[in-house]
Parts: sequence; C-alpha cells; structure tokens
Amino acid sequence: MENPSININENSCQLGTERSVIREIFEYGNMRAEKVGRENVFDFSLGNPAVPTPDCINQSITRLVNDKSFNVHGYTSAQGAYDARSSIAKNIRDRFAVNAQADDIYITCGAAASLAITLNALCNPGDGVIAFAPYFPEYKVFVNAAGAEFTAVSADTEHFQIDFASLEKAIAPQTKAVIVNSPNNPSGVVLTEQTITRLCEILDKYSKQYNHPIYIISDEPYRELVYDGASVPYIPEFYADTIVCYSYSKSLSLAGERIGYIFVSPKVVESRRIYAAVCGAGRKLGYVCAPALMQYAIAENPGCVCDTEQYKINRDLLYNALTEYGYSCVYPDGAFYLFVKSPTGDSVSFCEFAKKYDLLLVPSDSFGCKGYMRVSYCVDTDMIRRALPIFKKVIDSI
Amino acid sequence: MENPSININENSCQLGTERSVIREIFEYGNMRAEKVGRENVFDFSLGNPAVPTPDCINQSITRLVNDKSFNVHGYTSAQGAYDARSSIAKNIRDRFAVNAQADDIYITCGAAASLAITLNALCNPGDGVIAFAPYFPEYKVFVNAAGAEFTAVSADTEHFQIDFASLEKAIAPQTKAVIVNSPNNPSGVVLTEQTITRLCEILDKYSKQYNHPIYIISDEPYRELVYDGASVPYIPEFYADTIVCYSYSKSLSLAGERIGYIFVSPKVVESRRIYAAVCGAGRKLGYVCAPALMQYAIAENPGCVCDTEQYKINRDLLYNALTEYGYSCVYPDGAFYLFVKSPTGDSVSFCEFAKKYDLLLVPSDSFGCKGYMRVSYCVDTDMIRRALPIFKKVIDSI
Repeated sequence: MENPSININENSCQLGTERSVIREIFEYGNMRAEKVGRENVFDFSLGNPAVPTPDCINQSITRLVNDKSFNVHGYTSAQGAYDARSSIAKNIRDRFAVNAQADDIYITCGAAASLAITLNALCNPGDGVIAFAPYFPEYKVFVNAAGAEFTAVSADTEHFQIDFASLEKAIAPQTKAVIVNSPNNPSGVVLTEQTITRLCEILDKYSKQYNHPIYIISDEPYRELVYDGASVPYIPEFYADTIVCYSYSKSLSLAGERIGYIFVSPKVVESRRIYAAVCGAGRKLGYVCAPALMQYAIAENPGCVCDTEQYKINRDLLYNALTEYGYSCVYPDGAFYLFVKSPTGDSVSFCEFAKKYDLLLVPSDSFGCKGYMRVSYCVDTDMIRRALPIFKKVIDSI
Repeated sequence: MENPSININENSCQLGTERSVIREIFEYGNMRAEKVGRENVFDFSLGNPAVPTPDCINQSITRLVNDKSFNVHGYTSAQGAYDARSSIAKNIRDRFAVNAQADDIYITCGAAASLAITLNALCNPGDGVIAFAPYFPEYKVFVNAAGAEFTAVSADTEHFQIDFASLEKAIAPQTKAVIVNSPNNPSGVVLTEQTITRLCEILDKYSKQYNHPIYIISDEPYRELVYDGASVPYIPEFYADTIVCYSYSKSLSLAGERIGYIFVSPKVVESRRIYAAVCGAGRKLGYVCAPALMQYAIAENPGCVCDTEQYKINRDLLYNALTEYGYSCVYPDGAFYLFVKSPTGDSVSFCEFAKKYDLLLVPSDSFGCKGYMRVSYCVDTDMIRRALPIFKKVIDSI
C-alpha cells in the first residue's frame, strides 16, 4: 500500500507523544544516571515512594500466594472482593463519622483510575469540572477524556488554601464537580477545616441555585502523609455529595501495584445510581477488577501505614536548608513535596539552569501556577544531603 | 436540597446496572452456593481459570517481595518496565517470524485494558469496528466507549470459521479495524491458516480500495490453551497492520491480577505513531502502569504456561458425554468453552430451564449468535462428573 492515509485518534497520539512533564524529567534522569552515575543525579522529579512497603503487606503477599487452598489470582467481583470492601468500609467507619458499607466501596487500579472512573460516571459532554491551582496536571487529561471542560481556579499564593473569589467566578450552571486534593500535590499544604467549611457553603449555595448537585471529588492519596500531628478534615463529614478517590500508592508505598478505591458516600443524593455509574464507567474503560492479590493484602492490614518518619526528616532537612539559602516556600504539613518559588520569577528557565547541575526539579507551569518548582522529597535522605550544596550553588549563581 | 436534578452519565449508569450476562449468572451462582451448598451448584458460567498458577510465578512473587535491594512496588515506566518488555519481545521473536522489540510492547492491566486502550488509540467518532459472531460481548462496550460503531459479522455456524460473504458486506469506508479472537471465546474454535490468509486478502483489498489501513486487532488470551497439538497462526506473520492484545489471565491463571500487553507490530504502517497513541490512550483512561510485581514475575518466566492437561481432560469428558446425550456442539481445539446448540432452538429459555437444576450456562444471545449455550469447562473435573447426569436429565426432559 502506498501513501495510505493514517487517521488514528490524534488526541491519543498527542497525549502519548508529549507525555507528562514529570514523566519526561524522570526518564531524563534515568538516562543521565546511566551516563554520569546514579549518585551524580539529583532527581527530585517523581513521587515514587522512597519509604519501604510495610513488612505486614509483603508478609500477607507471601502467605497468600503460598496458600494452595485459595484461588488468590482469580477474578474478583468487578467492584472488588467483598471482604476487601468490608475491611475498607470498616476502616472508614472507625476513623470518621460516616456510615460507609462494603457496597459503597469500588476498589480500583489506583488514584488515576479512581479519578478517570468517577469523572466518566458523573460527566456528560458540556459539563464543567473545577480544580484549584496548583493542581496535578493529569486532572485536565482525565476531565477532557470524560468529555467535560476543565476550569482551574487560580492559586491562593499566600497560604495555598482556596481563592474563594476566583472559585465563585468559576462556578457556572454546567459545573458538575470540584476536585479537591488535600494534602496537596504539589504544594504539600493541607486544607484547613475553615477552608473546607467555606468551600462547602459555597457549593451548597450554587447547588441550590442551579438545582443540581455540584459534587466534590476528594482526591486523597496523601491523606496519611502528614507531619507534626496535622489533621486532614474528612470531606464526607462536611458535604453530602462527596466521592472520595483514595489510593494506597503513598500510604503503603505501593505506587506501581495500582490499588486504591472509590468511596461513594451513602449521603450522596441517589448514591446507588452514582455507584452503578461508577461500576459502568469502570467497565467501559476496561477495568475488570483491581489486582486481586493486592486487594487481599490490603484487606488483611486495615489502617496500616508506611513509616512516614523519613519523609518528615526529609521535609525538615530540605525546608530548613532551602529557606536558609534564600529560597521561598510555603510550609508543607503533608504529602512529600515542597513548592518552591523560582528565585528568577520564571520556573521553566530556572529548572533548565538547575538541570545543568543534574538537579532535576519540576517547573510548576503544568500545575496551573507559574513561577514555582515542585521538589519531591520522597527520596533518599542521603541524596538530599548531597544535593544541598547544588541547591545553594544554583541560587548563588543567579 | 429537595428534588435536585441528577444528571449523571446515563450510559455509565446503565452499563453498571445491567452488568454483563456472564457476571450476572456468576453472582447468581455464588448466591445459590450460599443457599444450597457449593457442591450442589453446577456453575459453567465464568472463565475464571481452574488450573493453579504455575509454581514458578508464585516463587518469583515470593522472592521479589522479599528482596530488600529493589523497589519492586514502585512505579514503572507507563509502557512497562524495560526488562519486562524486553523479555516479552524476545519471547515473541523466539516463537514467531516477527521482529518484536521492547519498544513495540506496552504492558497492560489485562486483555480488557488492552482492547479498550487499542480502540481508543485507533478510533475516531464515526469509525466502524467489526467483530465476528460469536464474539465476547464486552467488545461492543469497548468499541462504543471509544466512540466507534460496532458491527457484527454473522456466524459461520457450520465450522465457526469466518463467513466471508457477510464480512465483505460489513466492510465500509469507515471501517477502522477488525477484531479477531482465536482460539475463540465462546466457540473454542481455532481459525485455520486458510481462514487467516483469506481474511488478510480481503482486508488488503479494502485497505487499498479505501486508501487507509484496516487494522486487525488480534485478541488472543487463549493462544496457549490449545489441545492435541493444534497450532494457532500468528497474525502479524500474515498481515502488517496487526495489533496483538495479549493477556496472561488464562495462560498463567492470573485472571484477577490484570496483566497482559499490547504488541504494535513493527510492520504496522507508521508504527511509532500508533504506539504513541497507545501510550496516550492508556494515559487518558487512567492507566498509570500495569501492576509492577506482576510485570517482574512475568519477565522472569518467559514462555511459562499453566498445566493445560486438566482443561483437555475436561473438554474430552464434557464433549464426549454431551454429544452422546444428544447435544450438538462444534469440536473445540482451544480455549475452555463448549458452544452447545440449544436442543429447543432457543437458548435463553433453555438456560432458564437448566437453572432450575442449578446448572448454570450462558445463553449465546449476547455473543451475537442466538440458539447456543456457552459451557465453560475451566472448572473442577469432579464438578463436571457430578453435573453430567443433570445435563442428561435436562435434555431428556425437553
């Protein structure tokens, strides 16, 4: 065949060619490591957990695969094994004032799947979905793939809470949902109870005004990663129409295993229909069930969390040093990121400059908030120590 | 809020409410088992592998999770860990006359994900995708979710090869792809080399006529499950524009772990763009990477296949008995299904009748080929032995 006309899906092709900025830097880091040695690359780009998976999880896995009495690798129900969903629901009930049951839980292949499925359950073409800058860049990809329009509320760059004036401007009759991410990637900030309360009041007001619910999609993979006793308000306690997207990627350092869940709060109006739509959306996106072995391992270890002490050490080390060197940065209570203001004002050129020293930072432009760099501290503490002189050299050279 | 208008995605809601016929029967079987005892329910509905996962896989898993030197649970590259892709590509090169390389492989969360991703990579709204009856019912769900129209070519009910006259009627200028599934679910039939050759000639002809490639999507989770030395032609050897969707669900009895791959043959026209579109489609459907632990376990055990001897014993036992009782059924060379003609002509009422005896069969209507029942024999041989008198009683009562 000569000169055939190739007419594949251009949007998919473009998304696969560009890839995410973060992934791009991560792959660059791997390439540099092969060239100059891993010890000479200071890669703060990716959120790949550095703390080991808790032993109890690996012990469960070992025991489960060696238990011949049980078909551990077989299909589970599409929404997840009943025992795993029960265990998750009980854990929610034990910790929060919400009456979660097994049939409110849909186990997923991680946070990205949770978000993609939830958006495909809720959205119709023409709907709008709002997120708060700075936001995880893939939100826009998932929202658009669900046929909806993505709107970013500009950042509150003073405290990295919510700029409510901007939010009220962004809400429109077609607004279907608002994505909340606390502790936040990339700022590390936890939304206060005061912020959540005010957010819920506003959403309640507009839900009534437009006579349809505006859902909160609470994306909370970093819930368990908070320091110095910080507390993260549980949004279903504050707002009925909440769908929680959870992931064990960070709390159990299982990022590559793709395990998480969607919790459709029983207080959601017509929650059974929403839950059915979640099941249907999972089905059409090609999710048959979440990885079975991981479902059972999670079920056996409710409430288990990796040792977050190393992240706290890393945060303190990095935050104290960078602010001493003259960098400016909001104080992060959770997650494993610092959101550092670019000393030059422009983050892309600053990150390019740092790259010459093999110091790999993510410019904030794709997070919808220009002029900052995301610094992931889910890395070896020793690597941070070795990187500190480079951070100093870079700011001193500007 | 009173009487709010709930306007979620109705298509998702409907797909989640109806669920697949097969899953429905499977859940019914579980419910009956609780009521009358597992030993009194003869469930031939689901393709949940009955043969154990090979020991080498469970040994790899055990070793990997206990290896502290290696972050086995961390993110891999989106397309899969390089070593895993290399291992898969080498296995393809070793077995077939195709020059597969690591960068032609995209590791997925199983066959359903492979299909959903491939269709979202290729299709634009208005495109057409063809499958051959009898076909796996979820094809239609995935095709429609990718915005394309699904067309079924009517079954060749004599040999369950391909009805080429119907195929030529089905092909249209908007035809983007044809899904081939051999060994076939639900018929168990393997397409012969003669059939594949003729199929490729026809697709070549229309690709030229319409001046764009018509892709073959080869869905082959049952490739390794063939008996008496039957051979399954490898379509990339016959047709350049082939994308293989593979899964380890059946070959390694890992159905619940969700692990498989997409192979974009390097002979595909503009294969790098197609591969990029696969990466992009995976990204927008929420797939970050396939389960990491399973990727490494697969990589360590290339060519490993579960013991298919039990399936052969089951096939022979069931095929011989059913045909002796007066049932009519095409002889299956592979997979683990018998496609049995309903003695009454109508399969839905026959399956309902059988259900009264707790004999659970899947009516063929949702496979696009009325009047048959799918009988999964990936079950305990002992359960088949106990079910045989029921099969006899049911046909004798008609």
